[in-house]
Amino acid sequence: MGRLVMKFGGTSVADIGHIRNVARHVLREVKAGHHVVVVVSAMAGTTDRLVGWCKEAAPVHDAREYDAIVASGEQVTAGLLAIVLQDMGVPARSWQGWQIPLKTDGVHGSARIAEIDSAEIRKRMEQGQVAVVAGFQGVGPDKRLTTLGRGGTDTSAVAMAASLDAACDIYTDVDGVYTADPRIVTGARKLDRISYEEMLEQASLGAKVLQTRSVELAMVYKVPLQVRSSFEAPDSPNQNKPDGSGPGTIVCEEDKILEQHVVSGIAYSRDEAKVSIRKVKDQPGVSASVFGPLAEADISVDMIVQNVSTDGANANITFTVARKDLRKAIEVLNGVKDKIGFLELTHSADVAKVSVVGIGMRSHAGVAAKMFRSLADKGINIQAIATSEIKVSVLIDEAYTELAVRALHQAYGLEA
Amino acid sequence: MGRLVMKFGGTSVADIGHIRNVARHVLREVKAGHHVVVVVSAMAGTTDRLVGWCKEAAPVHDAREYDAIVASGEQVTAGLLAIVLQDMGVPARSWQGWQIPLKTDGVHGSARIAEIDSAEIRKRMEQGQVAVVAGFQGVGPDKRLTTLGRGGTDTSAVAMAASLDAACDIYTDVDGVYTADPRIVTGARKLDRISYEEMLEQASLGAKVLQTRSVELAMVYKVPLQVRSSFEAPDSPNQNKPDGSGPGTIVCEEDKILEQHVVSGIAYSRDEAKVSIRKVKDQPGVSASVFGPLAEADISVDMIVQNVSTDGANANITFTVARKDLRKAIEVLNGVKDKIGFLELTHSADVAKVSVVGIGMRSHAGVAAKMFRSLADKGINIQAIATSEIKVSVLIDEAYTELAVRALHQAYGLEA
Repeated sequence: MGRLVMKFGGTSVADIGHIRNVARHVLREVKAGHHVVVVVSAMAGTTDRLVGWCKEAAPVHDAREYDAIVASGEQVTAGLLAIVLQDMGVPARSWQGWQIPLKTDGVHGSARIAEIDSAEIRKRMEQGQVAVVAGFQGVGPDKRLTTLGRGGTDTSAVAMAASLDAACDIYTDVDGVYTADPRIVTGARKLDRISYEEMLEQASLGAKVLQTRSVELAMVYKVPLQVRSSFEAPDSPNQNKPDGSGPGTIVCEEDKILEQHVVSGIAYSRDEAKVSIRKVKDQPGVSASVFGPLAEADISVDMIVQNVSTDGANANITFTVARKDLRKAIEVLNGVKDKIGFLELTHSADVAKVSVVGIGMRSHAGVAAKMFRSLADKGINIQAIATSEIKVSVLIDEAYTELAVRALHQAYGLEA
Repeated sequence: MGRLVMKFGGTSVADIGHIRNVARHVLREVKAGHHVVVVVSAMAGTTDRLVGWCKEAAPVHDAREYDAIVASGEQVTAGLLAIVLQDMGVPARSWQGWQIPLKTDGVHGSARIAEIDSAEIRKRMEQGQVAVVAGFQGVGPDKRLTTLGRGGTDTSAVAMAASLDAACDIYTDVDGVYTADPRIVTGARKLDRISYEEMLEQASLGAKVLQTRSVELAMVYKVPLQVRSSFEAPDSPNQNKPDGSGPGTIVCEEDKILEQHVVSGIAYSRDEAKVSIRKVKDQPGVSASVFGPLAEADISVDMIVQNVSTDGANANITFTVARKDLRKAIEVLNGVKDKIGFLELTHSADVAKVSVVGIGMRSHAGVAAKMFRSLADKGINIQAIATSEIKVSVLIDEAYTELAVRALHQAYGLEA
């Protein structure tokens, strides 16, 4: 048996009862002979309360103090889990980011991991001690606490696994990665395996199982990831499959996936808004004049469609932004209207992005064509298209989201 | 103006509104030209919640994990106060114990301070930055967090002051040290000054204004202490007296107290229980056979009275313990009854200790006699007596506590 990093999020450690459940999962792996590191989030609600206090103290506040305050949440969970593990007879101790140390670049509020000195933890693992690591946090070059930003605990877990040459199990409130959202598609099927690349697309397309950054990190360092449920009984027979494949979905390199599907899943996101600029003068630099100011305002632009008007002198540009950024994007563009010189600006928040993801489409033609045909058959109009090597995304009227996901799930034969 | 350490307890930082009030006190001292360090406790209720979780996790738990969990409370307050101070235009940053570092002996749960390296804080003070220090915590030789036990934040504050050659203002929910508890004695008077020795007796006799340990530390390092109210308006004219004496009570060396009273105050404690052992064989080693087992059981004994019985062969021993220890003390003694060989064990929890404290009694005879006379005049029976250089304590029926305190307050002329 090898080294294993187990990660548990806030809802999995919401109170002492839940923490005890987590400890039983850990105990099972220890009994199976694994050398275990556990990485934990703050108890559900804690981070929100701490962030609320920071905002109440001052709407705009020092990110260094914010980090010191917010990092306390994971510190508490780590200590409590260590106590419960010891109570179950498992040797354990908690580690705060600075104690490991997990060194970051010092960018407070959204630090990146620079270096992990895991020698001491590695030594204690060999002696059978479980390390309970406070996730989401590290220490900057100035010896002040830093937090890793959204999804930081996933990132901590994967980074610890990379540093220890360990596998990484991400325990969450779903039991794996599905071919589509089971709340929408009754026939959605849990995948045994998915490639890093596909998972990365899924994550960035709105499937909230794993954070993009942690998947990137796992891909770079080839950390075998597993997404599995923390709410399933720790001692259920489902926990240890005879073939060692685990009860969840394993995220790994594509050559380790025996049964390749052309398409592995259908993702969707309602967090979209569309902006159209009509009759922009079609000349070199026009795109820069539109997207430069948006970038400066820290607004990420996703899909972009540009076409030349019938008279050949003007262009229409359509693009999408996150729904929360819509108002700001409109303000920015109206502010530079004279400079860009457009006729009209329209916008809509009633749009959704639906995507087909699959590593097999690299070698299979016709995936996009099938998508467009399926949607057309249901009378769904496509407002924009974006593609990558392994995904095709379309922007549609939000009202058709479920219909589109179901139609595509069936079209690619993904049913169980 | 000099260096100043300001300490605020849990009720003074109970929420962001209270923290803002604390910041205004700090702002006032900064404006007055002081170089300020603030030492804070956890927000009221936080420590209890964290301790509760530890107990729920396991009734008996690793003190190292307990320390890591509980120390998070002060960490949060320090960060929040730093944010509020910055918002008011005061340069400030938070410091956790390990960041200073405040090094302790590593005895988890009740560590003693070994060394404070305050060079960096001193440098930043000179540059006008306010250091907001998380109280109650330090770091042990093993680089794990340690907490200082009960009253730890007072101890942190005094130790920081000693290390920085600063004065120390302890902000609390009373506005100073009184000649007696004002809830009992309407004419009780706030003292302008009190000596370390007297304060030490007051603290150990049950007046809950300051913790004994912090007073001891202040006495050893000659740190000028002031006890003052955090609830008074930070900008009230009472805050800065023309003579610089401050609005609270200053605890200092006795030679700095111009107007010496023979008696400075009347203290009382209801946290007492009495145990009597009748007819112990009066032979060498009998005291050891009684008090040895109690010490081994970690029970502190306070007052002791031993007298020989009329037949000369037996002794009666009466002593007091903290009320919470009574049951345990009886168990211990009954367990060694055969070894000690006593006839009867009686006990009572309906007792109180009333004490007269005053540095002047060193040079004035008759203080104790006056005490006994006053109590006799009110028909109050004395069950035991204990004395030190600067205090006389008597054990009486608890029902007479208020009466005794009032009578003594009047007898020594302490009224306002």
